[in-house]
Amino acid sequence: METKGILVVVSGFSGAGKGTIMKELLRRYDNYALSISATTRSPREGEQDGREYFFKTREEFEKMIAEDALIEHACYVENYYGTPRAYVEEQLALGKDVILEIEIQGALQIRKRFPDTLLLFISPPDAETLKKRLIGRGTETMEVIESRLARAVEEAEGIENYDYFIVNDELDECVEHVHSLIQEEHRRVSRSMELINEIRTELKAFQKG
Amino acid sequence: METKGILVVVSGFSGAGKGTIMKELLRRYDNYALSISATTRSPREGEQDGREYFFKTREEFEKMIAEDALIEHACYVENYYGTPRAYVEEQLALGKDVILEIEIQGALQIRKRFPDTLLLFISPPDAETLKKRLIGRGTETMEVIESRLARAVEEAEGIENYDYFIVNDELDECVEHVHSLIQEEHRRVSRSMELINEIRTELKAFQKG
Repeated sequence: METKGILVVVSGFSGAGKGTIMKELLRRYDNYALSISATTRSPREGEQDGREYFFKTREEFEKMIAEDALIEHACYVENYYGTPRAYVEEQLALGKDVILEIEIQGALQIRKRFPDTLLLFISPPDAETLKKRLIGRGTETMEVIESRLARAVEEAEGIENYDYFIVNDELDECVEHVHSLIQEEHRRVSRSMELINEIRTELKAFQKG
Repeated sequence: METKGILVVVSGFSGAGKGTIMKELLRRYDNYALSISATTRSPREGEQDGREYFFKTREEFEKMIAEDALIEHACYVENYYGTPRAYVEEQLALGKDVILEIEIQGALQIRKRFPDTLLLFISPPDAETLKKRLIGRGTETMEVIESRLARAVEEAEGIENYDYFIVNDELDECVEHVHSLIQEEHRRVSRSMELINEIRTELKAFQKG
């Protein structure tokens, strides 16, 4: 029935558990492909090129922009982040649902270029839990907390640009919701036009015959 | 999180198994309420007033139209069919997801008056199966078959007005798809604005405090 995978953007508040949800989703189901971003920031300890990110120099990254080799890119804290086009297109063509874990700037670029992208926003269950996660273990400086908070306020303002708002209360349930949500999306009329048109054609031929 | 139920319209080709799917959905889950239509057609053998339909005289029905007591109505083969407003509103307020099994004319009226209605179209798996169901057991007259076929062609033309196209291949799977589809719909950003706004307000208060 579906001939092509769905492009899915996952964003959410810092501390909402996006990373864990994505990891579980990929572990449980084999119809997903997770896109790996390119970035100009330096690898942190334990990060591997091609696993967490593709680490690029500023020159390499700007060349990718110039060659339209990225389907979205954005700048945070003076570093570039972007999604390489080739992997996404290849996996979609194979019928995989491709997940991009990106921020709102990039999400809006993707929605504009690929209007049938599914945009998901993940949140802790309530403001209290969100605040606790922003504060962290009490070892953060006020500056760090304030910057996280400012970002969360900004992210909250952008939620209306997303399709679904998913509360991560209990991890296991949340993973299953994200999965059914993406799978049911395959049943959208706009994604089923091939089968619908086939039925239309055959009904008309039957009517004439 | 959700304060209100979702209004769901279910339409589909004749012989697609809508009735069986609805019956199973109501048997398995207690969050659904099935709206019962009013009609001016005569009860068939075994049909009970208030179970299959509310049977009304033409005068009674036209009075309901005049009093805006129906949220949609349509005319088929010189009989009126319509959805009484009171039951739908009462069940939605109780948080039930209310299902209307109606035809496309009524579906379009509902979508116009209640834009956030979820519209589902149910189909047999392919044109071949659909044709077999239209023909029936071989005991139908050509006239009956041709009229069913003409209607199916018309229904097929209207599918783009629906949100999801659901193939009823295997009943059990199909019921579960319809269920997850409706349940995931509760997670739409537009249906979660209460929680989103609460988080926004508290984040801003926290920022100032």
